[in-house]
Amino acid sequence: MLTYCIRRRLFVTSHNVSVDICPLHVLLQVSKHSVKSSDGGPDAAGDMLQLLQRRFFIPPDPHHAESLLKGRTCVYGPLGVDLKRNLLDQWWASVVRSRPQVFGISTLYELGDKGAGEGNHKEKLGDSVDELLQRRQPWRTRLLQGALAQYVPSLELMNRKLPFGLAETGLCYQPEDANSDAIGCSSEVTEASLVWFCSPRTSSQWLDYWTRHRLQWWRKFTLGPSDFSTRDIQDEERNHGTSRGVTVLYQFPWGTETLETLWMLGDAALLRSHTGSRDKLQCRDGKRVVLPHVLSLSANMDRGVLAVLFNSLQHVQKVDSKQRLHQRTVLKLHPTLAPVKVALDMGKGSTSELRQVCEGLLHELLDVGISAWPGYMDTTQSSMDKLHTKYDEMGVLFTLMVGENTLENGLLLVRNRDTTIRETMHISEIRQFLLKYISAAEKI
Amino acid sequence: MLTYCIRRRLFVTSHNVSVDICPLHVLLQVSKHSVKSSDGGPDAAGDMLQLLQRRFFIPPDPHHAESLLKGRTCVYGPLGVDLKRNLLDQWWASVVRSRPQVFGISTLYELGDKGAGEGNHKEKLGDSVDELLQRRQPWRTRLLQGALAQYVPSLELMNRKLPFGLAETGLCYQPEDANSDAIGCSSEVTEASLVWFCSPRTSSQWLDYWTRHRLQWWRKFTLGPSDFSTRDIQDEERNHGTSRGVTVLYQFPWGTETLETLWMLGDAALLRSHTGSRDKLQCRDGKRVVLPHVLSLSANMDRGVLAVLFNSLQHVQKVDSKQRLHQRTVLKLHPTLAPVKVALDMGKGSTSELRQVCEGLLHELLDVGISAWPGYMDTTQSSMDKLHTKYDEMGVLFTLMVGENTLENGLLLVRNRDTTIRETMHISEIRQFLLKYISAAEKI
Repeated sequence: MLTYCIRRRLFVTSHNVSVDICPLHVLLQVSKHSVKSSDGGPDAAGDMLQLLQRRFFIPPDPHHAESLLKGRTCVYGPLGVDLKRNLLDQWWASVVRSRPQVFGISTLYELGDKGAGEGNHKEKLGDSVDELLQRRQPWRTRLLQGALAQYVPSLELMNRKLPFGLAETGLCYQPEDANSDAIGCSSEVTEASLVWFCSPRTSSQWLDYWTRHRLQWWRKFTLGPSDFSTRDIQDEERNHGTSRGVTVLYQFPWGTETLETLWMLGDAALLRSHTGSRDKLQCRDGKRVVLPHVLSLSANMDRGVLAVLFNSLQHVQKVDSKQRLHQRTVLKLHPTLAPVKVALDMGKGSTSELRQVCEGLLHELLDVGISAWPGYMDTTQSSMDKLHTKYDEMGVLFTLMVGENTLENGLLLVRNRDTTIRETMHISEIRQFLLKYISAAEKI
Repeated sequence: MLTYCIRRRLFVTSHNVSVDICPLHVLLQVSKHSVKSSDGGPDAAGDMLQLLQRRFFIPPDPHHAESLLKGRTCVYGPLGVDLKRNLLDQWWASVVRSRPQVFGISTLYELGDKGAGEGNHKEKLGDSVDELLQRRQPWRTRLLQGALAQYVPSLELMNRKLPFGLAETGLCYQPEDANSDAIGCSSEVTEASLVWFCSPRTSSQWLDYWTRHRLQWWRKFTLGPSDFSTRDIQDEERNHGTSRGVTVLYQFPWGTETLETLWMLGDAALLRSHTGSRDKLQCRDGKRVVLPHVLSLSANMDRGVLAVLFNSLQHVQKVDSKQRLHQRTVLKLHPTLAPVKVALDMGKGSTSELRQVCEGLLHELLDVGISAWPGYMDTTQSSMDKLHTKYDEMGVLFTLMVGENTLENGLLLVRNRDTTIRETMHISEIRQFLLKYISAAEKI
């Protein structure tokens, strides 16, 4: 209970409504992850998947839900697409864009180059796609492969100076393992990878640095940081005694799963991928010339999306003024990750006039990059409660209600997802208010 | 010559340096695409590819250059990655984010679902990746397929109200055709697709609307808008008399290529992909219930990157104060697309102190999302001319030179790529100046 309050306050500090004005008769009894504590793993997962299907994160076809649960790329609906985009953008901003020594690269899904020398590609084939498909095509299973191949052309970027990194996000092919009984589960995984080249003497410190960084990054966006943890691992295959690694784990309702793996690969991986001269691989570590050690960080961003979703799910029980018990399900996604920042709806009144106001406001918000949901376009009558339930499950930060009042004096109602407080605000202030709220949340 | 001046002025309006202060002895003789006019197609392409390899857009391996020339996804280096990201982001902002009726989706590369019912996936296979690879896996060749499949679950988004669209960007599999003699050329293409569902009576107007929009969009970022054009096309395969389409073309030095294709597909494609009841496919067009027509827009974003690059390449001849003739090669990429906005270098002086200033400024810029190149980290001595040549070829908008002066009074030199004018500016003003310049360029 206490933890929740502290967490909630964290989210609210950026918002100029004081928590103190919260009506006393609204008693919040928070049971975070109550789904987990009540009836165990499978149901919690089932509830979540139904919510995701109902609210346009994923399509209703069960294959997609199953793929997502297994940490694989699935078909995403509009909200899922934006959530994943936001998470990938945050990763890119934190790992690549803010670091002068990290460079983005982009390699191919198909490892076709390998066959180039063998003359396979020289065959003149007819238009038949079937024939072409029957040819064996190896795909990348990790982004590490591509980064190691791009090591030599990248040396010039930093004038052979250590440390530096090559980063990429993209699709990898990871077929189901033999024990899986999944039918039609996707073989695709979206990986976010950083391959870090550093001097041998510092590689251990860099592993510690990146482990801290990655754990902090995952926790940054979440209500329940304690669900994220790290664990040291040893590689059984390589097993040269030196091979150390760390995994970042998330505690799902059904158990712990790996979100990200960090490996110290020494210089073996680099030597394997570049046969021939050792000299051309060497770099400068201060005044010394060394063969760099490789640190590989790779995160499963589909499972990351799932972790963020589970972590932000809250079931809140409240007693209203008539002593009736209500349960609210809220997806308290972090403001930077929330796929929809604001929903626009209209109350009773002159439909065509209210619609015009909504359209104007919507475009004003979209123009400054605030993702807005055009709820007013849906002309099905819906009660306010149903509307709030819908937007809470979509993780929408604010609901704006344009009404007859707005036509008279420009005032509209702004409801906050996290506090459920409704404020009156002038239409001209909305844009600035939202921009401030979101940018403040980014800085926490 | 005149056109160039007008164009240049367009780029410069957002910049607070007046063109009038341009030194008179610097006579600019612009020969836009002189490579094209001088020695024809192949050399122009060769020169461009060498530049791209030299300046970290693509790696030096000729396979990548060849793939890119053929409008296919290739391996990109750091500058290529950022240019393509920026172009894709601009597409997403213009087609999806700014339109309430367009929703993003994300489908799978592998069309694995088709096989799910056949029980292929039930086979228990060993760990052997080879075995798995030998199974036939069909991949998507266009994003249209996935959007049509997601049509039914998306109907609820707009409450069956027309028009609306489903958008996606991603990889498609397009094997080389039989006539190609390319060895090891990539089979991947990055497509940006909008599938637009509208009432039959408006589909023709929507084709006109989107054709105008797409042509304008491509032209927005370029110095030579006349190199972009559209052409009406007829589909020979479908050939139902009604099948109309338009292509957006770009005039490369070696000839015209298709950047984007817009097709009016009627209702046939939708009916084909959803066998069974027609009723569940129907939508509302005002008060009437109709089976929507489909408009498919699909752009090849790798070829788009190439078009943007060719279009922004300029060879500028200038005579200096000693009447010597110089030629400058400049990649005049649009400010929003330029992968590196600013380069930071240091002149003579106390290295460690200047370095500190550079680092501080670099992080200040990176923090606000201005992509900056840490030129000061490269300790190889290089003349100012070589430095400018390098940054002009990288398309860097501004070069900042931190010198001893900066330590004394906070002033540094800011050189503009397009005007080549050097200004003195206080270090505290840099960030705001760059933010203004870039956001002004976005609004043109």
